[in-house]
Amino acid sequence: MPYDFSVTTLRAHNPLVQCITNYVSMDLAANLLNAAGASPAMVHDPHEAAEFAGLADAVVANIGTPSAAWAEGMVAATAVADRRGIPWVLDPVAVGATGYRRDLAARLLQNRPTVIRGNAGEILALAGVAGASRGVDSAAGTEEVGDRAAKLAEQLGCVVAVSGAADLVCDGSRQLIIEGGDPRAPMITALGCSLSALTAACCASRADPLLGAAQAMIMITAAVERSGDAGGPGSLRWRLLDELSQLEDDALAAVPVRS
Amino acid sequence: MPYDFSVTTLRAHNPLVQCITNYVSMDLAANLLNAAGASPAMVHDPHEAAEFAGLADAVVANIGTPSAAWAEGMVAATAVADRRGIPWVLDPVAVGATGYRRDLAARLLQNRPTVIRGNAGEILALAGVAGASRGVDSAAGTEEVGDRAAKLAEQLGCVVAVSGAADLVCDGSRQLIIEGGDPRAPMITALGCSLSALTAACCASRADPLLGAAQAMIMITAAVERSGDAGGPGSLRWRLLDELSQLEDDALAAVPVRS
Amino acid sequence: MPYDFSVTTLRAHNPLVQCITNYVSMDLAANLLNAAGASPAMVHDPHEAAEFAGLADAVVANIGTPSAAWAEGMVAATAVADRRGIPWVLDPVAVGATGYRRDLAARLLQNRPTVIRGNAGEILALAGVAGASRGVDSAAGTEEVGDRAAKLAEQLGCVVAVSGAADLVCDGSRQLIIEGGDPRAPMITALGCSLSALTAACCASRADPLLGAAQAMIMITAAVERSGDAGGPGSLRWRLLDELSQLEDDALAAVPVRS
Repeated sequence: MPYDFSVTTLRAHNPLVQCITNYVSMDLAANLLNAAGASPAMVHDPHEAAEFAGLADAVVANIGTPSAAWAEGMVAATAVADRRGIPWVLDPVAVGATGYRRDLAARLLQNRPTVIRGNAGEILALAGVAGASRGVDSAAGTEEVGDRAAKLAEQLGCVVAVSGAADLVCDGSRQLIIEGGDPRAPMITALGCSLSALTAACCASRADPLLGAAQAMIMITAAVERSGDAGGPGSLRWRLLDELSQLEDDALAAVPVRS
Repeated sequence: MPYDFSVTTLRAHNPLVQCITNYVSMDLAANLLNAAGASPAMVHDPHEAAEFAGLADAVVANIGTPSAAWAEGMVAATAVADRRGIPWVLDPVAVGATGYRRDLAARLLQNRPTVIRGNAGEILALAGVAGASRGVDSAAGTEEVGDRAAKLAEQLGCVVAVSGAADLVCDGSRQLIIEGGDPRAPMITALGCSLSALTAACCASRADPLLGAAQAMIMITAAVERSGDAGGPGSLRWRLLDELSQLEDDALAAVPVRS
Repeated sequence: MPYDFSVTTLRAHNPLVQCITNYVSMDLAANLLNAAGASPAMVHDPHEAAEFAGLADAVVANIGTPSAAWAEGMVAATAVADRRGIPWVLDPVAVGATGYRRDLAARLLQNRPTVIRGNAGEILALAGVAGASRGVDSAAGTEEVGDRAAKLAEQLGCVVAVSGAADLVCDGSRQLIIEGGDPRAPMITALGCSLSALTAACCASRADPLLGAAQAMIMITAAVERSGDAGGPGSLRWRLLDELSQLEDDALAAVPVRS
């Protein structure tokens, strides 16, 4: 077991994660954080987002349903996160779809995210590669984007995490690939958004954000695999939460990770 | 089998459905579209709603939790849908309850919806029959509103779909009635809203919106019937999503439809 | 059976509950009200909140995800509730966390809530005891706050309901303690918010708000206990809704209540 991925440590830490996330993901993201052992707080309004970021252990900014007020909240909260040195995760949902999302993502990048987590199309769009994203789904495969993700990570000085049939995390110099999962997992809407929230939680409970991002992916993969007798996306969702709440460290160690 | 209702065709098409829907229905509508084989995108803000409607295969505008910004987003996106000739569905949630909803519905009607989908009280209220709607529930039976729905459809040149103990779809000249379903289905909040989103998806994958609206109702009826051993609304919800994801064309053909 | 707690009466009344609640709780609160036998309506915008409060049987104002527009909607709707003499419930989510929440709660208190429902930390924060609340979780135990809750209730002339390992309801002179429940229930995000919505429903169907608040807690406790074979928070959630929809009066009578 070359890596010390630990859900026990995460639960002991119980990080408070400020989620500025889209409307679709609120329910699942909060429940998933709770099941994993973190403490969610959905605080986004400009009247309080920066103040709350002063209390939080980590922040996630997700542009899935952007608006002027939420954009201000995201920018303000992530500026505080950057200044305080707490981890924050950018989820650039469907960033290739509209100019408004591209502009908002560009503003957020100035606050130096700790981790960017998206699917292949979103990472490619963020890297300036046009036309790879259609809505919130990804058209390109995870492996094809490895090189570009590494380049983006190096350029921005952050970790880039790419979800797909296999998951990939990288910074400027290192790369990990996490195998496994269930092909039906993408049918659970907002599972990717919730993974971004969990990434923030995991980065708050360990020093190396590459391993934090990897741990979040490993936890979801392990929980999905243990939900294996689900009859479809409806039951997979609640089984995933059940399994996540019961996950132990050896389940994480069993997920194949290669560098 | 007089009608060619097909979930296989829908999945092959995988239409991108722009949902401008209420906060309560976001989670279920997105998951239900995914389970059915469509691709949901919750894009409502005036900064991007019209731009995104240029990419979408269909749009749904649902007035369940209206506000000034969302109203602008709905009007802008449905104007693009009308101009592009892609189908769009109006869900006039609780339109009889407040003046704000009546005014918004009137604005949206100017963009010529392809389908209007609601319960009997909402359809009656939209037809100018006052006092039939209390909150989001319907006081009148589906069959009683058949005539008024047909008149509304003829007047507006659209399809009107009425959910109830039996479902009804009509345009100016034709009418279909879909039997079946589970009396507990109305206890699943936002199932009607999600049906409206699915109606948009089905209309994007076939030319005749009367049959598109009917197919959405048939798919939900078939999936609910197959979830029959549910112990209540909690389990009915996830079973419905599971069954929807596994639905095949012969299950649709088994739902009784009469004209 | 010293108290006449009755779900049959609630279902017969089927109160229309206007919920101005946070984004995270919308789905669960609406489904839980439906399962319990009430009729939810999520109506918050300032354009219609006051008008709708003129139709509702009860109102809940929940500050979990506050914003300027929603604050106006809450203040307007609860002013109507106060004027009409219908019950309204304040849920002061994480009121200790930011100044914005404290200011909003102070404004809402002027409209004289029928019931305030929160966890111990929130009730302490509302009572002016600083530092007891961290995010949405409670740091202090329920029993420790009994005295302060009673004092707050007396001072404001309302009922105060405190959720925890045991639940407590009190007004200036009376106190009830409800035992039981499942230690995993707090992992269901927004269950507390949904309990506040159910409290509004129960207060609409009986004259004494102390017993209304107690009944809501008893109903959740009974339903959670009957969901006992759940494997985690994911299944506990849907089982709770199933059980709630099937609850009968004798199940309520079996929950231990002491004064």
